[in-house]
Amino acid sequence: MVSTIHDIGEHALIRRSIQKKTSDNFQVRTGIGDDGAVVSPKKGSCSIVTTDMLIEGRHFRWSWLSARDLGRKAMEVNLSDLAAMGAMPQFVTVALGLPPQTTEREVKDFYRGARLALKPYGAEIIGGDTNGTTSAQGWIIAVTMIGYVSRRSHIPLRSEAKVGDVICVTGHLGHSALGLHLLKQNKNWQDGKPFIQKHLKPQARVFLGQSLAPHVHAMMDVSDGLLADLDHILRQSRCGARLEQESLLLTPQYQRVAQKVALDPVALALSGGEDYELLFTAPQEKFKKINEIAKKHRIPITLIGHVVASKGLKVLDSQDRLIRVQYKGFQHF
Amino acid sequence: MVSTIHDIGEHALIRRSIQKKTSDNFQVRTGIGDDGAVVSPKKGSCSIVTTDMLIEGRHFRWSWLSARDLGRKAMEVNLSDLAAMGAMPQFVTVALGLPPQTTEREVKDFYRGARLALKPYGAEIIGGDTNGTTSAQGWIIAVTMIGYVSRRSHIPLRSEAKVGDVICVTGHLGHSALGLHLLKQNKNWQDGKPFIQKHLKPQARVFLGQSLAPHVHAMMDVSDGLLADLDHILRQSRCGARLEQESLLLTPQYQRVAQKVALDPVALALSGGEDYELLFTAPQEKFKKINEIAKKHRIPITLIGHVVASKGLKVLDSQDRLIRVQYKGFQHF
Repeated sequence: MVSTIHDIGEHALIRRSIQKKTSDNFQVRTGIGDDGAVVSPKKGSCSIVTTDMLIEGRHFRWSWLSARDLGRKAMEVNLSDLAAMGAMPQFVTVALGLPPQTTEREVKDFYRGARLALKPYGAEIIGGDTNGTTSAQGWIIAVTMIGYVSRRSHIPLRSEAKVGDVICVTGHLGHSALGLHLLKQNKNWQDGKPFIQKHLKPQARVFLGQSLAPHVHAMMDVSDGLLADLDHILRQSRCGARLEQESLLLTPQYQRVAQKVALDPVALALSGGEDYELLFTAPQEKFKKINEIAKKHRIPITLIGHVVASKGLKVLDSQDRLIRVQYKGFQHF
Repeated sequence: MVSTIHDIGEHALIRRSIQKKTSDNFQVRTGIGDDGAVVSPKKGSCSIVTTDMLIEGRHFRWSWLSARDLGRKAMEVNLSDLAAMGAMPQFVTVALGLPPQTTEREVKDFYRGARLALKPYGAEIIGGDTNGTTSAQGWIIAVTMIGYVSRRSHIPLRSEAKVGDVICVTGHLGHSALGLHLLKQNKNWQDGKPFIQKHLKPQARVFLGQSLAPHVHAMMDVSDGLLADLDHILRQSRCGARLEQESLLLTPQYQRVAQKVALDPVALALSGGEDYELLFTAPQEKFKKINEIAKKHRIPITLIGHVVASKGLKVLDSQDRLIRVQYKGFQHF
């Protein structure tokens, strides 16, 4: 018999899904099962707090991914914010809104995926709230994540870009947006698989972010698209940027598949969302060191432009001509 | 012209609604506007973390309350969890899922109400995520709250009730459930107003909780109804309880209005949800001290029973006869 959340009830479900083992993290004094979790912050540390909500139909469709993948992705999206602050993930709360027909299995799988994503960092789910919904409005997932950085370490804020800085990104841009497009178009091509995987199973650059933090000025994660996100850094740092289109790392396979679905690979790399890569600015002289760090983590880093004094964001082609970019990232509504 | 969230866009809305003033709380190093907020925990303190989700249609209806009241209630519900841990509220994150027709005014009012509720404690909203929803599924509000207690202070967990303890509650039980019933039945009676107010504008017992914490064994807030919540304490403390029905503080007005809508006042007081009062157990000899504290806070405290060794929860009438209780609190689904 399949147990639905309606049969089991909220409290039992939380117990069954989360409280699988008692906490062995010395910093958690009391975990799930009381009014709040009790945690001792590490001595001499700052806490970084971030929150994100995923809504069925808006951020994901069940036909695309399993409950386990969803749990994983709900964590990675938040882990990526911590990565951009150079923080170590520590504690997580998960609030769920669920339709009544949700099965116990789905909820357990969701938490299994979530724990899997947190495991490399020793981070722990310490609190939860589970609500059955009366309407069929689908899954709602709200995650809050708390990480830490040492009190003396540099936290690379968005406001800290300096004129003359190089602008760099990790990994490949546009891949997730291409994958999302393939999913929506139902294109199940062999050569499209890596992009679909990148969309459904993003991997936050947590360890890389921690290694980069001491050497960069501004850093953030690319979730709304390169241009939209870089715009945040430029506004908060009160400066501008010139990007060289030629320097974007576009793989032949990416270009081929994008063209097969009539998408402009460059525009997609500049504006596609949900890459969960890191975007940062750093002093020119640090670039060698940064490359060494990237090599150690086996994640490519590309220099895509420079921070300039004159406001605004210009994208130039190989002949230094201004490129008109069709769209500027996606707004969440 | 009324601005909807669709016109304004997510980022502008968050900026306009939350970043009204820069943080003047010395512990917040960076507030809203980056990937995460940076906060310094107080030296020698433990953090208490709690989370709750409110869903339109399930937890509230717009015809009953304003956006400002909703913001207030979304905070009080979480403040109540911190109160039960004897914690001082400190930091808050708010994730919102909103229908596209939501107005800027509504969101601003929501945050205004939220800030109002947090003000007495100097607590601050440090992070947010706002999502427009594609369907008309209504408002979804997920709040995570972080409070602190001194590392050496006693945190009254649910597992700490001892045989022989007195069982006490603050304020009046059943009032919120009566108010909810009146709202659902559209009974706008003059003598029903206080109960409707209690339901729409609960006030968490934060300062009282802090004062009580050193003197009690187990403590929690009454959100699912007295019997259901006391059951959590008894299970986690591996003991039972005897409650004296006669000792429940039922005001004449409460009894009269309950009877007017054909509800049993006793059953309602035992099982009604959302009172957000404190339920605690304490050594008999502490009761005098506890009463003094309550008097100082001008909040009534009632001794309603005792913790006993034999498992289970018994409710007795004035002749020591066992009472059958019709329903045992509400399950959240």
